[in-house]
Amino acid sequence: MDATQPDDTGLQAAMAALGQRARQASRRLATASGAQRSQALAAMPAALERVRDALGEANRADLAAARDAGLEGPMLKRLEVTAKVFDAMRRRLDEVAALPDPLGRVLDGHIRPSGLRVSKITVPLGVIGIIYESRPNVTTDAAAVCLKSGNAVILRGGSEALRTNRVLAEAMITAVSQAGLPADAVQMVGTSDRAAVGAMLRLEGLIDVIIPRGGKSLVQRVAAESRIPVIKHYEGLCHLYLAADAPEAMAVALTVNSKCERVEVCNALETLLIDSAAAPRLLEPVVSALRQAGVTCRGCERCRVILPDLEPATEADWRTEYLAPILSLRLVDGIEAAIEHIHTYGSGHTDGIVTASLALAERFCAAVDSASVMVNASTRLSGGGDYGLGAVVGISTDKLHARGPVGPAELTSTKWLAVGDGHLRT
Amino acid sequence: MDATQPDDTGLQAAMAALGQRARQASRRLATASGAQRSQALAAMPAALERVRDALGEANRADLAAARDAGLEGPMLKRLEVTAKVFDAMRRRLDEVAALPDPLGRVLDGHIRPSGLRVSKITVPLGVIGIIYESRPNVTTDAAAVCLKSGNAVILRGGSEALRTNRVLAEAMITAVSQAGLPADAVQMVGTSDRAAVGAMLRLEGLIDVIIPRGGKSLVQRVAAESRIPVIKHYEGLCHLYLAADAPEAMAVALTVNSKCERVEVCNALETLLIDSAAAPRLLEPVVSALRQAGVTCRGCERCRVILPDLEPATEADWRTEYLAPILSLRLVDGIEAAIEHIHTYGSGHTDGIVTASLALAERFCAAVDSASVMVNASTRLSGGGDYGLGAVVGISTDKLHARGPVGPAELTSTKWLAVGDGHLRT
Repeated sequence: MDATQPDDTGLQAAMAALGQRARQASRRLATASGAQRSQALAAMPAALERVRDALGEANRADLAAARDAGLEGPMLKRLEVTAKVFDAMRRRLDEVAALPDPLGRVLDGHIRPSGLRVSKITVPLGVIGIIYESRPNVTTDAAAVCLKSGNAVILRGGSEALRTNRVLAEAMITAVSQAGLPADAVQMVGTSDRAAVGAMLRLEGLIDVIIPRGGKSLVQRVAAESRIPVIKHYEGLCHLYLAADAPEAMAVALTVNSKCERVEVCNALETLLIDSAAAPRLLEPVVSALRQAGVTCRGCERCRVILPDLEPATEADWRTEYLAPILSLRLVDGIEAAIEHIHTYGSGHTDGIVTASLALAERFCAAVDSASVMVNASTRLSGGGDYGLGAVVGISTDKLHARGPVGPAELTSTKWLAVGDGHLRT
Repeated sequence: MDATQPDDTGLQAAMAALGQRARQASRRLATASGAQRSQALAAMPAALERVRDALGEANRADLAAARDAGLEGPMLKRLEVTAKVFDAMRRRLDEVAALPDPLGRVLDGHIRPSGLRVSKITVPLGVIGIIYESRPNVTTDAAAVCLKSGNAVILRGGSEALRTNRVLAEAMITAVSQAGLPADAVQMVGTSDRAAVGAMLRLEGLIDVIIPRGGKSLVQRVAAESRIPVIKHYEGLCHLYLAADAPEAMAVALTVNSKCERVEVCNALETLLIDSAAAPRLLEPVVSALRQAGVTCRGCERCRVILPDLEPATEADWRTEYLAPILSLRLVDGIEAAIEHIHTYGSGHTDGIVTASLALAERFCAAVDSASVMVNASTRLSGGGDYGLGAVVGISTDKLHARGPVGPAELTSTKWLAVGDGHLRT
């Protein structure tokens, strides 16, 4: 027998116990009043404030250990809870508390000819499992979003953030308990054992949906291993199409902002499509502004006829999410060619058009099959915060269940109620 | 090399070509007007009427072949398109046409403080794959429901109904083409090769969702093999709880109707829970009426104290979907024990209560976590038809995306639109 067997069995049993506690808590949450959930949400910012010092200490310990383990750059940066990060966490707790209650909404309903009263109402999904990498703000965001929607949550953060996440989770649990709701509504997997993720993904029947938040490899591993439905967030290969009539200043500003405001995120621009009719006018100023911002530009053959010093872009570039200061540029002949390129190479995350024409804007919005379609707006504006949803637990690139930002409303299911007075089927 | 390899490769390529045609059609459907879709739906009943004779001939040929192959009883019955079945198919086409358009509904929207105009609208899912067993009515139901929701559909019916389904699919395609919509909006897998199902389940990126309609083994096979998201319809282990105050006549009538109106379907009653306070009053008349209707009753120990001639029910009975004239009965001490039994043994399909008490009805509706919860109504009344949805393509026992009857509204996704005038992220 494999030497790790007894440990694995123990781990699986421990995870199952955690899942059962979550299921029990979810039953109580599902029938708790909106007022009670509001009370818990209202207590969260103060609970976070009270652990400020302990959080600083835990975060410094995590950072020191991470540095010792050789972590650097963006990984370290994501782990750090600066005063600004702390304030943003707190603010999002307030924003989630202020959102309308997503539960008990009547989505459909009527009295049938027989007199049977039928209605379809929103209810919690049940138990949500969140598997995430180093950003500790996911701990508070997810606790608030899940509680708002009446769901119990099991949090599994990165091992490098274990001390930080523990302090944050305990603060959230305190707020939940103070409101008289079950403490098990928010649970954290307390071990850094990597096998815990696998054990969690086997808890079918105890966890209703898994949401991975992190890089592509994490999402792929979770999607491949999970026996539980997964709301996925794959890559964001985002496009901007500069139509023939795109105003120059707006075209330049939106391209630079979409690409450069933050290069490593999913809604950053990766490919710029320029209408061939506008290219003689727009290509040079756009590339010049991008280069000033430190972006390497790679152009198609036709771009390079206009600007011969562009690096050449190959077929592989159209399929690449750089997450880096690199942009591929391609000339297209009209809006239909732009749409065709986006459908062929895009990931359905966020795609935009720059135009002054209402007809072109409407055609683009109708035809482009993406979670977010932007007109004369930066691709960076797609997301829960900018859409006014407060905190989200992810951005779905799936088409089923939830598409785009996943906030409290997306963490609900529905239930049909049928009320009669002895109604039979005949 | 495996001798079947070339064939399998050919089959996979043929299925991929079919998937690509469906994807192309779905792009056109997504931007077709509601009026155009309505025109196609309005043409469907007449198109069905025109093939009445050809359909009869094809169906007789399928039935004769099925008899020769040794099919009998319910399988043969499901295959037969009687005049009654034909009329029901036609009526459901009318009902779907009369439903409101599920597309372009604005589910959320606001103008952000920055002036960015944000809205979330319903859009088609894209391409739906339906894999079903012998009932030919699925062909017309699915074509109408998918077209209503702007989706292309790939139909894969049972091989025993191939001739019948072909005539039906061709009628639907004629109606679609007449309205100027792409004929590939409705496609049928024309081979009875069982490997076609496997090939279809590998068309990720070309099919957006698979809906299996059939027995548990079909659903399990599809769920296990599919690389495409699946909307599942597992078993219906349905309960009725007779509360302490349940009126006798209503309790008897609802029990008999829920169990007997049709025993082989998913929303038929499988376990009756009787409040122990009502058992001395209700058990005898309920069992007597069930026996008169030909139902075998199996009772828990406490039932058998009151009615010693009941067959004993074991733990296995609480977990069994009989789909047959058998019912298990159990006494429970109060509503919380009833809810606990339903959560432990139920399948979350349809569960009901019989009571005169508003408080008990409300507690039951809030706490029971099932797709349909019935108050003083037969479990047999849960479903798309009785809820006024017209035709459906299935009944989901999943909690994600769609729960309960899957009609046109459930075959939609959403898209965020954000319209600015040069809005940047800062």
